[in-house]
Amino acid sequence: MKVSGRHFRAIARRPGESAVDVVDQTLLPHRFALKTLSDEAGVREAISIMVVRGAPLIGVTGAYGLAFALRDDPSDANLHGAYGRILATRPTAVNLRWALDIAAQAVRGLAPSARAEAAIATADRLAEEDVVTNAEIGKQGLSLLRRALEAKGGRGPVNILTHCNAGWIACVDWGTALAVVYRAHDAGIPVHVWVDETRPRNQGASLTTWELGAHGVPHTLIVDNAGGHLMQQGAVDLCIVGADRIAANGDACNKIGTYLKALAAKDNRVPFYVAAPQSTIDWSLPVGVGGVEIEERAADEVTHVGGVLADGTAAKVRIAPAGTRAANPAFDVTPARLISGIVTERGVAEASRDGLAALFPERRAA
Amino acid sequence: MKVSGRHFRAIARRPGESAVDVVDQTLLPHRFALKTLSDEAGVREAISIMVVRGAPLIGVTGAYGLAFALRDDPSDANLHGAYGRILATRPTAVNLRWALDIAAQAVRGLAPSARAEAAIATADRLAEEDVVTNAEIGKQGLSLLRRALEAKGGRGPVNILTHCNAGWIACVDWGTALAVVYRAHDAGIPVHVWVDETRPRNQGASLTTWELGAHGVPHTLIVDNAGGHLMQQGAVDLCIVGADRIAANGDACNKIGTYLKALAAKDNRVPFYVAAPQSTIDWSLPVGVGGVEIEERAADEVTHVGGVLADGTAAKVRIAPAGTRAANPAFDVTPARLISGIVTERGVAEASRDGLAALFPERRAA
Repeated sequence: MKVSGRHFRAIARRPGESAVDVVDQTLLPHRFALKTLSDEAGVREAISIMVVRGAPLIGVTGAYGLAFALRDDPSDANLHGAYGRILATRPTAVNLRWALDIAAQAVRGLAPSARAEAAIATADRLAEEDVVTNAEIGKQGLSLLRRALEAKGGRGPVNILTHCNAGWIACVDWGTALAVVYRAHDAGIPVHVWVDETRPRNQGASLTTWELGAHGVPHTLIVDNAGGHLMQQGAVDLCIVGADRIAANGDACNKIGTYLKALAAKDNRVPFYVAAPQSTIDWSLPVGVGGVEIEERAADEVTHVGGVLADGTAAKVRIAPAGTRAANPAFDVTPARLISGIVTERGVAEASRDGLAALFPERRAA
Repeated sequence: MKVSGRHFRAIARRPGESAVDVVDQTLLPHRFALKTLSDEAGVREAISIMVVRGAPLIGVTGAYGLAFALRDDPSDANLHGAYGRILATRPTAVNLRWALDIAAQAVRGLAPSARAEAAIATADRLAEEDVVTNAEIGKQGLSLLRRALEAKGGRGPVNILTHCNAGWIACVDWGTALAVVYRAHDAGIPVHVWVDETRPRNQGASLTTWELGAHGVPHTLIVDNAGGHLMQQGAVDLCIVGADRIAANGDACNKIGTYLKALAAKDNRVPFYVAAPQSTIDWSLPVGVGGVEIEERAADEVTHVGGVLADGTAAKVRIAPAGTRAANPAFDVTPARLISGIVTERGVAEASRDGLAALFPERRAA
């Protein structure tokens, strides 16, 4: 997508180099800057502190991390070790494991001396495929927004509520949930997005608003508490969010708070969609609720809030009494029964075992 | 309640003076300071910018405001004018109208020269009654926590989730929802409170944590997004919140986000209680959902977050791109069907027209 008229990807390999440039998401929306990652440790840190985040993006970034590790030490021991170390950076999103599995698989049978080159080629391929996949998710979801507009008698805008950031900055390009929004906007469907700020890290306030603003999509920021009220008032036509892991039964693990919005959508008969590539589906997980390891992050993400002061200086303020204990689960699981459909690159699946299996029959056989 | 060993009320008349001291809630938890209010304009500003907040407290404060207005000009015109001006400061909580009605009623038939004294006596009485009422709400709710402990086979703590601040600082003393918690804690029932931070103004993070900490009640701060997940995990035994207006059918208007927690409680079979004095019941409102004027507050409460920097200096940070549009509805309405019971000073009512009428039969006759 474009930033100030120039095309960027959230991650891009430096031409001819064994290094990638990523958009440093810890600085947005206040500063747009790239950060170069060129070794495994740098990749792990970038994923841990969320310089890069978003399930598809951490998958691709992790694959590059494995390639950098093999460049420095292509032994079996390091292949095994780096795989485990990178996987441990964020336990919840399944895309990281998916990408590392593909990258490891691609090099395991090779002589150590051939591994680095093959691994980086694999990471490049995953990055390219991610772009194609998410562009396709956008297309597949377009019909949902057309239908929502028709349901309003053609009088827009279609009011879409989204949680967290499932935009291009969470992927390599396009996004998942926001790919649908961008496609609709570009196709002339009038859309307006209610952006959940998404505490504690405010990815909605800092990233989704920034992305939508850059692309010219009308949007309004709200606190996470407001969505239920807006749905009760008829101000939301459709919800669409991303996912970090989808179980084989359609339960969807996503940013903490997603479940609450899905409950409100159900209570107010607002369609609730999850958009994700098939790499987010964990076919080895039969049921999502109770089955996903939920990452617990640092308490200071709750007790402190980062932003900029009036003069533009970056700063963090403490909002609770000093020493307050806080819990910080980063994700929750929305039961399939609350999900109207799962938008994938192959089409919109019913959120159920049968619905997913029908769209991905080769996985049923597996 | 006590602050550093000394007893305070959230509002207290200065002995022998036509002025009140209030705890300045915009400074908490980082600084504890009293602020003196001595005229109508000061009262209005204090309510508007939330130096004082909480439905019961703004009722009592408003009554003092009317008394100060009558001291300065006891005419019919000013009685009428001040009533309207004070009422307009916050449109949602019904306690403000309730208290102003009582105060206006008490002076309307009097000669102008007698009005100021009668009005201040009425405000004093409302303040004293608020303390008694809320102490009683605490007692009435105690059985709910005893039952919750029994349901766990006596193995505590009872995990209570609360939203916003319905504590002593929201009233004159004791609180509503937190009165129940304090009573239980004092009675030796082991309790632990999950405190919703309550964006956008973070009354949970700044006030509820502070109150509970001062009283020694174990608690953990969470973002508003986390409650659904915790309920799904079995980590919440009971929810209890306050209210700003309860319709005659039991629908409860409370701080934005309450509705989402009530939905999650229902979905996970967690009892969900609303605690409020009968002054919060709006008998003139047959149905709450769609019937309450929801205050829309300033956008910068969403785009900016206040707290303290590492050196203790108060500061505000902007968390969204400059110029981001934000919507800020301050309350939502939880349908009675999601509420397990309404804890009042007379007992726990079923959240229904019949349930409330049974507890307050004199209002049914009205």
